[in-house]
Amino acid sequence: MAAKHTSRHLDTLKLRRVAIDTYRENVAYLHRECAIYRAEGFQALSKIEVSVNDKKVLAVLNVVDDAAIVTPDELGLSEQAFAQIKAAEGGLVRVAHAEPPRSMDAVRRKIGGERLSQEDFSAVAMDIVGNRYSKMEMAAFLVAMGQAGLDRDEVYSLTRAMIESGERLDWHEPLVADKHCIGGIPGNRTSMLVVPIVAAHGMLIPKTSSRAITSPAGTADTMEVLAKIDLPPEALHRIVRQQRGCLAWGGTARLAPVDDVLISVERPLGIDSPGQLVASILAKKVAAGSTHLLIDIPVGPSAKVRHMHEALQLRKLFEFVGDRLGLHLEVIITDGRQPVGRGIGPALEARDVMQVLENDPQAPADLRQKALRLAGRVLEFDPDVRGGYGYAIARDILDSGRALAKMNSIIEAQGRQAPHPAPGPLTYEVTADQDGIVTGIDNFLLARLARMAGAPMDKGAGVDLFKKLGEPVTKGEALYRVHAEFNADFNFARALTREHGNGYSIGTTEQVPQFYVEF
Amino acid sequence: MAAKHTSRHLDTLKLRRVAIDTYRENVAYLHRECAIYRAEGFQALSKIEVSVNDKKVLAVLNVVDDAAIVTPDELGLSEQAFAQIKAAEGGLVRVAHAEPPRSMDAVRRKIGGERLSQEDFSAVAMDIVGNRYSKMEMAAFLVAMGQAGLDRDEVYSLTRAMIESGERLDWHEPLVADKHCIGGIPGNRTSMLVVPIVAAHGMLIPKTSSRAITSPAGTADTMEVLAKIDLPPEALHRIVRQQRGCLAWGGTARLAPVDDVLISVERPLGIDSPGQLVASILAKKVAAGSTHLLIDIPVGPSAKVRHMHEALQLRKLFEFVGDRLGLHLEVIITDGRQPVGRGIGPALEARDVMQVLENDPQAPADLRQKALRLAGRVLEFDPDVRGGYGYAIARDILDSGRALAKMNSIIEAQGRQAPHPAPGPLTYEVTADQDGIVTGIDNFLLARLARMAGAPMDKGAGVDLFKKLGEPVTKGEALYRVHAEFNADFNFARALTREHGNGYSIGTTEQVPQFYVEF
Repeated sequence: MAAKHTSRHLDTLKLRRVAIDTYRENVAYLHRECAIYRAEGFQALSKIEVSVNDKKVLAVLNVVDDAAIVTPDELGLSEQAFAQIKAAEGGLVRVAHAEPPRSMDAVRRKIGGERLSQEDFSAVAMDIVGNRYSKMEMAAFLVAMGQAGLDRDEVYSLTRAMIESGERLDWHEPLVADKHCIGGIPGNRTSMLVVPIVAAHGMLIPKTSSRAITSPAGTADTMEVLAKIDLPPEALHRIVRQQRGCLAWGGTARLAPVDDVLISVERPLGIDSPGQLVASILAKKVAAGSTHLLIDIPVGPSAKVRHMHEALQLRKLFEFVGDRLGLHLEVIITDGRQPVGRGIGPALEARDVMQVLENDPQAPADLRQKALRLAGRVLEFDPDVRGGYGYAIARDILDSGRALAKMNSIIEAQGRQAPHPAPGPLTYEVTADQDGIVTGIDNFLLARLARMAGAPMDKGAGVDLFKKLGEPVTKGEALYRVHAEFNADFNFARALTREHGNGYSIGTTEQVPQFYVEF
Repeated sequence: MAAKHTSRHLDTLKLRRVAIDTYRENVAYLHRECAIYRAEGFQALSKIEVSVNDKKVLAVLNVVDDAAIVTPDELGLSEQAFAQIKAAEGGLVRVAHAEPPRSMDAVRRKIGGERLSQEDFSAVAMDIVGNRYSKMEMAAFLVAMGQAGLDRDEVYSLTRAMIESGERLDWHEPLVADKHCIGGIPGNRTSMLVVPIVAAHGMLIPKTSSRAITSPAGTADTMEVLAKIDLPPEALHRIVRQQRGCLAWGGTARLAPVDDVLISVERPLGIDSPGQLVASILAKKVAAGSTHLLIDIPVGPSAKVRHMHEALQLRKLFEFVGDRLGLHLEVIITDGRQPVGRGIGPALEARDVMQVLENDPQAPADLRQKALRLAGRVLEFDPDVRGGYGYAIARDILDSGRALAKMNSIIEAQGRQAPHPAPGPLTYEVTADQDGIVTGIDNFLLARLARMAGAPMDKGAGVDLFKKLGEPVTKGEALYRVHAEFNADFNFARALTREHGNGYSIGTTEQVPQFYVEF
């Protein structure tokens, strides 16, 4: 205790960077014997405020008993917190009790069932992008929104708050097209077909995508098999001006960054509310400068949206918020009963896409059909395209090879990957355990299987489907092949099919679920 | 990449203990270059399952870039996770993708507005005590319960699930009394008076308390000024048999442990729902072996419960759940308009308690009165005490010195602290800024002030009140004195009063809020 007293005239600690990646949550490390602020005085789970001059960072406190990590006169910050404080190691920092972010009051009001205002949502968004929320606090916000639900005006307010949390691109053109699928269907790589078709028509379609978070491949991951996707803003703008389109990773621009942070909490929790889904998608698109947007809502027994009435409700919500944002927005409801195309995983999906572009007879017909329908609807955003003629124009662009030529130009402009990653060399085939007709393919299980096999990190990992809904199979016939690059992943994948089945249902033709309507 | 391939035949890592206290959340540390499981394959925020033989531990994954923390062939576990896996450092562990705990499905159903069953609550409780929930997941559970609310049967189910999550004490007597205040009123140390009075009467009252979590002193912290409170189970039982009562820390027994875990998330979030409050209190008491319980609900403008109608609702809920648990339960609604007694903080509160026991003319009258009322009600649990006579018996035990004698016996039995910690030497006085009558004292601000000053860790830290509601003050007269032991805390406290005011309202007699009813 004597030592503690004698050093109490100091009131600063030395900053240390602790090489731990705590992923979107700031963590501060304080030695248990820390002379000044005795770690115990701060409650273990509580947050502290770390400041250097005027720069303040909030961080969750972890107490350390190993001087190799931090010594008693140091204050350690995890990678992300260290990056935020923008000070050198060894510099002097002050530590104080942190107050909970002010906007948590709005979260508590939402928990209490109240309606939140535009100002409330904006305050929460600014506190989240300011790294003032812990993961727990974000979880509280997400659950509160998901449970009480947001009314339409609140969804609009949340969308605006998300847009305002970051930067906005401006393409200086009256018609900037985009398309977006709400997700959940493996192999659904239509963007890589819609973009070259639409750009070949001359319409501006600067598509930026995220990498996969919980799915086995996003458009960015798959495009990366063919080309560079991580482009500096100037290069991106130049390519878009020259090519009328691009297929790039949107991560470098800070577009609706609060959405990325929320997703990092929402996904592991497995919660997903319609209001937040709509706000998340529309905020990203408006921030990316889109003026005309086609939304694809797949419906099916193992899709995100399982019933047509839910899809219709979701469409209304997209339309309401889109209109208030001044977006020209169309919604299309599509067949989400099974994966699209044959490949699941970046290299396998890139193969499917190129087969369609090359008019290869082996090309998966469902991917081609869906891409043409979507591209057709996007083309009809052009005031000079007569309603109903978009599909034929799209098909003409694809069949004539102009879509392939445009794709190759975009690939060259972004920087071609050569050689392409190939499907992973470790493989096994999963076979039918009875004769019959394929009556169900579980999107969720196959996506998970491809992830276990290593997708999207390992480009060649994934699943290659040989049988689709309605096709006959005989006992012992291969349903699909799993590809992996590494043994551990190969074993994870095998364990999954052993434990949870192969994801296929086999029965009679009458048992194949019908899909009635495409809007 | 070559190195990665060649080492892929290994599938285990060496276990390392990482001396970081991550407080009730398991964290695993994996080097970014980890040869086998390449950290990137696991998503940064996701959980992994670490296993040694049959023992499995779930942990949130942090990625490390410093071999001083973990090397690429090691798997680090934070203190709590390491303790759970019960294996030696250097031993071989396996790592796998962790599935979300199965009971998260119930949490998602609750978010969706469903009613949960006894089985659901039990599954959640077992997963939480099994350390299978991350803080985010616990936050999701808490918010889901708080927002949709729990009906009375659900509160009962939650209470039972909490009880079953740990151990239960059995005192082998038909009447085991206890009292509990729902909290929020600083200085409210009535247990330290009720226990010696009731035990002197001969009724069994084995009081175990928690340390303060967000308040400046709990009964355990304050008793610790006078005596040892951390007693092995055998010693506790012996003392209770001999003395008929004790004032000990309940932390060693695993009583409703799921409650402790939930509190560690609930408190920093500042969320607190009636259902959870009732379940939390009753589960602890039933697990501690209580058969007769008096609940104290203080009501006041800065108390946890602000309006009488809320207090009445809460009482009904306590009664409903208590009855179904077979508890003999009484609820008393008390005056929560201001702190009880004069001292706030362990040493200052212990001083107040001893003054009351010693019948010191300086003893705070409100603490004495309240303790007598509560003790009187507890004494009436005795079938031989006629209804309405408890108060007089309690007063007689106190006035005669028998309560003091019993307290001294309990202190000796538990182990006297000598010398007692004294009020902290660093002090400043806060004065009235105008003439008038004290019309309000903010419980919340004064509690926070005492915490900033160092309470409860620094026993001598706290606030000593000189003026209470309704008393006249003149401008410049001292309202209270702040005590601290360390400079940093002293400065934190001063900063708080500078920023948030002194917590006192001064006005006219008519403005003093009235408190009408005590049940």
